[in-house]
Amino acid sequence: MLATIITIGDEILIGQIVDTNSAWMAQELNKIGISIYEILSVSDQREHILSAFAKAKQQSQVVLITGGLGPTKDDITKKTMCAFFNDTLVLNEEVLAHVTDLFATYIKVPMAPMNREQALVPSRAQVLKNTYGTAPATWIEDDGVIFISMPGVPFEMKEIMRGDVFPRLKQLGNLPFIHHRTILTAGQGESTIATRIEQWENDLPEDIKLAYLPSFGTVRLRLSCTGHDKKSILARVDAQIKELYLLMPDIIVGESETDSIVQTVCKMLQDHGLTVATAESCTGGRIANAVTEIPGASKIFKGSTITYATASKVAVLGIDASFIEKHSVVSAQVAQAMAAQVRIKFDADIAISTTGNAGPEKGDSDAAVGTVFIGVATKNGEFAHEFMMGSHRERVIEKTVNKAFELIQQEILKKASK
Amino acid sequence: MLATIITIGDEILIGQIVDTNSAWMAQELNKIGISIYEILSVSDQREHILSAFAKAKQQSQVVLITGGLGPTKDDITKKTMCAFFNDTLVLNEEVLAHVTDLFATYIKVPMAPMNREQALVPSRAQVLKNTYGTAPATWIEDDGVIFISMPGVPFEMKEIMRGDVFPRLKQLGNLPFIHHRTILTAGQGESTIATRIEQWENDLPEDIKLAYLPSFGTVRLRLSCTGHDKKSILARVDAQIKELYLLMPDIIVGESETDSIVQTVCKMLQDHGLTVATAESCTGGRIANAVTEIPGASKIFKGSTITYATASKVAVLGIDASFIEKHSVVSAQVAQAMAAQVRIKFDADIAISTTGNAGPEKGDSDAAVGTVFIGVATKNGEFAHEFMMGSHRERVIEKTVNKAFELIQQEILKKASK
Repeated sequence: MLATIITIGDEILIGQIVDTNSAWMAQELNKIGISIYEILSVSDQREHILSAFAKAKQQSQVVLITGGLGPTKDDITKKTMCAFFNDTLVLNEEVLAHVTDLFATYIKVPMAPMNREQALVPSRAQVLKNTYGTAPATWIEDDGVIFISMPGVPFEMKEIMRGDVFPRLKQLGNLPFIHHRTILTAGQGESTIATRIEQWENDLPEDIKLAYLPSFGTVRLRLSCTGHDKKSILARVDAQIKELYLLMPDIIVGESETDSIVQTVCKMLQDHGLTVATAESCTGGRIANAVTEIPGASKIFKGSTITYATASKVAVLGIDASFIEKHSVVSAQVAQAMAAQVRIKFDADIAISTTGNAGPEKGDSDAAVGTVFIGVATKNGEFAHEFMMGSHRERVIEKTVNKAFELIQQEILKKASK
Repeated sequence: MLATIITIGDEILIGQIVDTNSAWMAQELNKIGISIYEILSVSDQREHILSAFAKAKQQSQVVLITGGLGPTKDDITKKTMCAFFNDTLVLNEEVLAHVTDLFATYIKVPMAPMNREQALVPSRAQVLKNTYGTAPATWIEDDGVIFISMPGVPFEMKEIMRGDVFPRLKQLGNLPFIHHRTILTAGQGESTIATRIEQWENDLPEDIKLAYLPSFGTVRLRLSCTGHDKKSILARVDAQIKELYLLMPDIIVGESETDSIVQTVCKMLQDHGLTVATAESCTGGRIANAVTEIPGASKIFKGSTITYATASKVAVLGIDASFIEKHSVVSAQVAQAMAAQVRIKFDADIAISTTGNAGPEKGDSDAAVGTVFIGVATKNGEFAHEFMMGSHRERVIEKTVNKAFELIQQEILKKASK
């Protein structure tokens, strides 16, 4: 079963917002056996929306539409759906009661006529409840194709999908099993890896697809397979993954159904009951932020200090000004001291620090752009490594974050092996 | 002049990555007078890519393609372009020299045959230099339509756009002026605003488009106008904006060509030469992270402590355990103390603190989910406000971040008025 995602709104086409909805929808739909054929972002113009609906109807069995459901005049999705389905808008009493209730409880201003119009839906639509917002989501079946229209606000859309859309789609039955499994490697480039596993790749069965996803010092290898025999798919992909482990034991750092070394390492921290703290300079809180985005972060994350200026390293972390002066703020000694201090302050098992020059201009030190020291502290002592992360600010920071998690992982493995 | 953006890669359609490239490209293309007609994300399948090329050629004069240019077998963009343009791949010596150089300087492993193949380009393509990567970007004109193919790695793509694509597109001449201007409001919902400015909206000239963009306690109003008489467009939009200021002086908090209250407030901090520090609990570093993403952040951002656990508030911020015990960790008193302490530690002009319960579960206090205290400290003293941010974790955090910036803004205005 194929789906098309249509996002409606000029704000996407002028780059005012980034479409994060589609990736989430795609991930979740894959889990229940629905593949995304295409993602289409179109403007708030009637003719353009109509042509997108027509294209989606031709190429897929499910059409997921987000956006254009607000109460103001620039939002025209409902009217355009009526034009497409030759339908009219009717007032839905249940939606009206919900909107009235939201206004009374949270918004606490009188409802305007346009808020009342939020309760209008196409007459042939089934209404899906939007717990957190006033715009109703709808489900319309047309010539065997399901059109689902939802608001573009991410947490409203997600709740509607979880509450109504996934359960209903699952009931359609006969959905295949879509399996993705992703191996995470660190330390070698995609072409080096491809050369190492060339023979294995050539021998891969036709229906198991391999993709390479390089990103700042890590490469993910994804195997995908779709079919109706779940048990056989799991076993066959599993066998291929085992071969990969044998071929590249030195560079596989983990497995991740989702995306990143961050998830992998945070899960390891949880499994081992370990906590982490960070003292960040050039990464500006990116390591802490990456950890706190993981559900359950409070179990593994003790906290962080973000000290941009040299003076803050003195005042907040308690490192001697003369010590910094002597070694330079971008140095192994200062990185070590930062990690050691923050570990004690936050009472964490593992502390990570960063100090470096991400560019584009030099900061409080003479270190070349791209120079980064990462410090690691545990109860057994502290150390720091120097890295040359390249010449582009974004790359320097991303690579440093990834490398920091690699170092945390190594500490976890050391502890685990004891 | 209309453009279509095509992103190629299964990783987008299975939700493994979020497409951030398209928003950036759209924003930058708007600045030089090119409108995005549509964004299309397609799979790594030849037939699907070919049909996307054909659709884009029909509906636009510029086609921007990203992705599918890696050295491994899953990347087929170059071959598919050859099929579409009835062309063949030829070795480009200049690209080969560049790839060889990158391997010698940064990658420091021997080149594999597939790295050499990175230097193959369609024979009729003009090559655009990819400073930071091995995959060459190309420019092909076909029946008056320009096809530009670039790697999907964001910072490589951006550098190619800046270095080659924008200058070349500008030379096409006769591009219109696309003008967006966005007013940022805080404190009222979109329907309340729409009711207040109804008459003004009805009287808007046909060619000036209005859009409402609500987001967590803020609503942006965007006016857009496109044409060839730049001076007249600027003046006419300006006149409309002035009317908006007269109609809603109480809720307009700033103007932002881009997105958010964060940019607005950071710019104000820079303009006034003020610095900020944060002590974050329930926001987990999100406020600090938002600031550090702004270019030039080091001038206004002193640093941050992220203290999740109550014990960290004691150890890191130096707040008495008995004081926290007495008032509860989620309280105005603790918020005030956090702000005051972090301001002194980091020697900042304005400090912001957050302590609250974002849910879904209760933390170290009995406060209801959604309860947040935001503390503010300046040289003149400190205070804290209590907020009820609703019932959804993501919303609670986002609203708290936005509210924090609103409070920083109010402090800047107080200082400015002195």
